[in-house]
Amino acid sequence: MGSKQGSGGKVTQQVKKAIGIGLLGLGTVGTGVAEVLATKADGLAEQAGLPLVLRKVLVRDVNKRRSIKLAPSLVTDRPDEILAHPEVDIVIELVGGEYPATEYIKQALASGKHIVTANKEVMAKHGYELFSLAKRHNTDIRYEASVGSGIPLISAFQQDLAANSISAIHAIVNGTTNYILTQMAQEGLDFASTLKQAQKLGYAEADPANDIEGIDAAYKLVILSNLAFRTKFTPQDVYREGISNIAARDFSYAREFGYAIKLLAIAKRDRDTVEMRVHPVFIPQDFQLAKVDGVYNAVEVETDLAGKLVFYGEGAGALRASSAVLADVLAIARNIYRGVNNVPELRLNETVSVKPMSDLKTRYYLRLNAPDRPGVLAQISKVLGDNSISISSVIQKEINLPAQTAIIVIMTYPAREKAMQKALSQLKQLPEVNEVSNFIRVEE
Amino acid sequence: MGSKQGSGGKVTQQVKKAIGIGLLGLGTVGTGVAEVLATKADGLAEQAGLPLVLRKVLVRDVNKRRSIKLAPSLVTDRPDEILAHPEVDIVIELVGGEYPATEYIKQALASGKHIVTANKEVMAKHGYELFSLAKRHNTDIRYEASVGSGIPLISAFQQDLAANSISAIHAIVNGTTNYILTQMAQEGLDFASTLKQAQKLGYAEADPANDIEGIDAAYKLVILSNLAFRTKFTPQDVYREGISNIAARDFSYAREFGYAIKLLAIAKRDRDTVEMRVHPVFIPQDFQLAKVDGVYNAVEVETDLAGKLVFYGEGAGALRASSAVLADVLAIARNIYRGVNNVPELRLNETVSVKPMSDLKTRYYLRLNAPDRPGVLAQISKVLGDNSISISSVIQKEINLPAQTAIIVIMTYPAREKAMQKALSQLKQLPEVNEVSNFIRVEE
Repeated sequence: MGSKQGSGGKVTQQVKKAIGIGLLGLGTVGTGVAEVLATKADGLAEQAGLPLVLRKVLVRDVNKRRSIKLAPSLVTDRPDEILAHPEVDIVIELVGGEYPATEYIKQALASGKHIVTANKEVMAKHGYELFSLAKRHNTDIRYEASVGSGIPLISAFQQDLAANSISAIHAIVNGTTNYILTQMAQEGLDFASTLKQAQKLGYAEADPANDIEGIDAAYKLVILSNLAFRTKFTPQDVYREGISNIAARDFSYAREFGYAIKLLAIAKRDRDTVEMRVHPVFIPQDFQLAKVDGVYNAVEVETDLAGKLVFYGEGAGALRASSAVLADVLAIARNIYRGVNNVPELRLNETVSVKPMSDLKTRYYLRLNAPDRPGVLAQISKVLGDNSISISSVIQKEINLPAQTAIIVIMTYPAREKAMQKALSQLKQLPEVNEVSNFIRVEE
Repeated sequence: MGSKQGSGGKVTQQVKKAIGIGLLGLGTVGTGVAEVLATKADGLAEQAGLPLVLRKVLVRDVNKRRSIKLAPSLVTDRPDEILAHPEVDIVIELVGGEYPATEYIKQALASGKHIVTANKEVMAKHGYELFSLAKRHNTDIRYEASVGSGIPLISAFQQDLAANSISAIHAIVNGTTNYILTQMAQEGLDFASTLKQAQKLGYAEADPANDIEGIDAAYKLVILSNLAFRTKFTPQDVYREGISNIAARDFSYAREFGYAIKLLAIAKRDRDTVEMRVHPVFIPQDFQLAKVDGVYNAVEVETDLAGKLVFYGEGAGALRASSAVLADVLAIARNIYRGVNNVPELRLNETVSVKPMSDLKTRYYLRLNAPDRPGVLAQISKVLGDNSISISSVIQKEINLPAQTAIIVIMTYPAREKAMQKALSQLKQLPEVNEVSNFIRVEE
C-alpha cells in the first residue's frame, strides 16, 4: 500500500499506450516468457488494460542462434540498455544466480522500474534490502516464480492467508532431489547411479550440488518463512543437509517402519522462535507429502484459521515459470494502468528469532554397522540411554557372516538434537560400532 | 480495474479513521468472523492500514443467547440498518441461501458498499448480474469463501492463473459427500447408515439433499467455471447426479478394477464448448483426488502454462471460512485505505457454450442383476454392441442360488453418453436383465 492515505499513488505517465517490458536473460525461462508474451499478446493486453510490449532483451551473446525469433534490435548484451531504458516499466530478471542479478535489480529499482524475478538466491539473500529499496523508489518487486514455479505460493502467503497466523511449513520444493529420491525408492537403485540417470534425463545439473545439498530448497524455505513470519532470515539461518548419504537400503528400512524418505524444507514457529531446516526426513507413508513423487513440488502450510492447506504442482520448467512471471507482470501492469501504487508495506516482526538446531526435539532413525557379537546392542543402548535417548524399536539386519558384521537399525523416541549429536559422536568412538552409516530425522 | 486510465479511482472519504464493517448473519461462520475481527483487531488493522470496525450485525432474533458477546447496540434485526449505514464500507453477507441474501447484496452494492460473501448459491445463480451491478456502482464484490472455504481458489483463478488457458477442473468441493463416500469405502457400510452417522457427527444436515444430490457442488463448479472460462453459466447448465444410489458393493467392485469412487465436479473445455457435470465417478486409485478423504476438499486445475495444480484443504468450518472472508475484507480495506478502485473488468468470452451431456465420451461401469442362466451375457453384450459400446471387462459376481440371480459387473471402453443412455433403456427392458442396479462414469 502507499504510505499516504487517500493517495492513488504515482501516475507513471498520463497517457500510456503500452506497458514496456525489459527482459534480462534468454535462457529456458526467458525464452518461455518471451514466447508467451508474443503468442498471448492479445489476451494479456486485455487483462492488463494496455499491450505488454517487449522493449529489449539482455543476452550474453547477441550472435547466438536461438529457437525464438527476435528482431535484432530487441537483443542487447548491455544491461544499461534495459535498466535505463526510458520506455521500460517492468524489468523481468531471469539471469539467475546472485551476481550480477542483484546489481541489475538494484539498478532497475533505483531507476523507478518494477521488478519481476524468478531468482530464489537473490530473494533469499537480499530480499529485505531489495524490498526496502523498492519501497524507497515506490516500485514493486514480485517473485512468485522463485518458489514452486507456477504454483501460487507467494501470493497465497501475501494475500489469501493475510488474516492467518502460520505455525508450520513443510515443503518439497526441489524437483531434482524429489525425482532422485522417488527413483531410489521405486527402483531400489543407489544414489550415484540415480543421480547419473537424472542428469542424463535433464532433471539434474552437471554440477548438482545446489540441488542435492539442499541449497536451492533452503533459498525457497527462507523466502516462504520470511513471508509467513515477517522476518528477514537469510540462507545462513537454515540448518541444511543433502541427500547424497542416503542408501538404497535406507528406503527398505523406512518402508518396514511405515515411512517414506523425502527431502523436506521445514519451518516451524514456536512462540518467538522459528526453526528452519532442510534435510532428508522419514515421514509416515500416509502423509500427503510422502505421496508427492517425481519432479512435483508440494507445500503444506499449517495456519490457525484456514487449517492445513497443500499446494501442489510442477516446480520447474519454462512454461510453469512463465505462468508465475506473467501473473506478476499482469498484477504490476494493472496497477500501472490504473495509475496506482501497490508497494507492500514492510512489516517486520522484530521479536522472532531463529531457534537453534540443538533445541530440536524429534524421533531419529539410526543405521549402524557393528560387529556381529553379543553385547554390542547393550553398549549402543547404553550410549543412547546415557544421553536420555530411548529406543522405540531396533532391528538387526543383513548379518555378513564372513565379515562378522551386522546392520543395526534403530528408531528412537523423541529426543533432543543436542543429545543425539553427543550420542552420535560417542557411538562413533565405541569399539562396538564399526560405522554410523546413516542418521535421519523423523517428521510426523 | 478502473475504466479510466491513470485514475486512482474514487476516494471514499478524504480522511478515514476506520473501515466500517457490516455483518449480515451471525450463524457459525458469522460468529467466527466476528470473533476473529475482535481477537485479531491489531494485526488486521496493521495489514489494512486502518482499524476494521464492526458497525452492525444483522441477526434474526436480537434476544437470542449467543456464544459471542456483542454490545446490544451492535445487533439488529433490520437489514436497512446495515445496508444503508453511512459508516459501513464493507458488507459481509453470511446469511446464506438465495433470498433474501441476493436482495441484501443488491441493495448494499446500490448504496456503494463493497461486498464480501460466502454465498455459493447466490454467486452461482446471480454472479454475472451482481458483477455488473457492482461495476455500475464502482464497488467490489469478493467471494473467496464460497468455494473451498479457506483454500485460495477464487484469487488463484483471478490472479495467479491470469496468463493461463484453463482446460479442465476436477474438484472435490463437498465435504459431506466426500465424508460419506470415504466412510462407505473404508467401513463397507451402506449409504443410508453412513448418512445417519454423518448427520449425528454434524457432517451432514438434517435435510441433506443439497449436499448428497450434488447441488452444492454444482454451485461451486459454476463459480469456478465462470472464472476459468469467462462465462456466465448457471447451475442449470450443470449435469448433476447425487450419491444416494451408490451401494457398498460398488466400492468393492471399484477396488477390484483399481478405482476409487468420488463425487467429482468436472468442467472441461473443448474448443468453444465446456462440459460441466457433477456425479459419482470411478477414478484410478493412484490419482491424487482418489486419496482426498473425509471432509477435505481438493481442486485440480489443468492449465497450459502452469501445468496441473492441486489445491487442498478443509472446505468447511467457521474458522476456515473466516480465513477467506477476512482475506477478502483485507483486500478491499487496503484499496479503500489507498483510495483506489479495484473493481475487476467483466470480460466475457461470448463464444463459449455448454456442451450437451449426450456428447460426453467416457468409459462406464455397469452393475446389473440378471437371471443366472446361459445366454444372459450374450444378450447384454448384444444390446451394448448394437449401440457401439465395447466391453472392456465383465465379471459375474455373487450368484444367488435360491433366487437364481447373479450380479454382472461390466466396464466398457469409451463410449458416447447418448449411446449408453439408449443402451441402458434397452437393457432395462431386456427379459435377461432383472435390474440395472448402478451405472457410474469413469474419469481418467
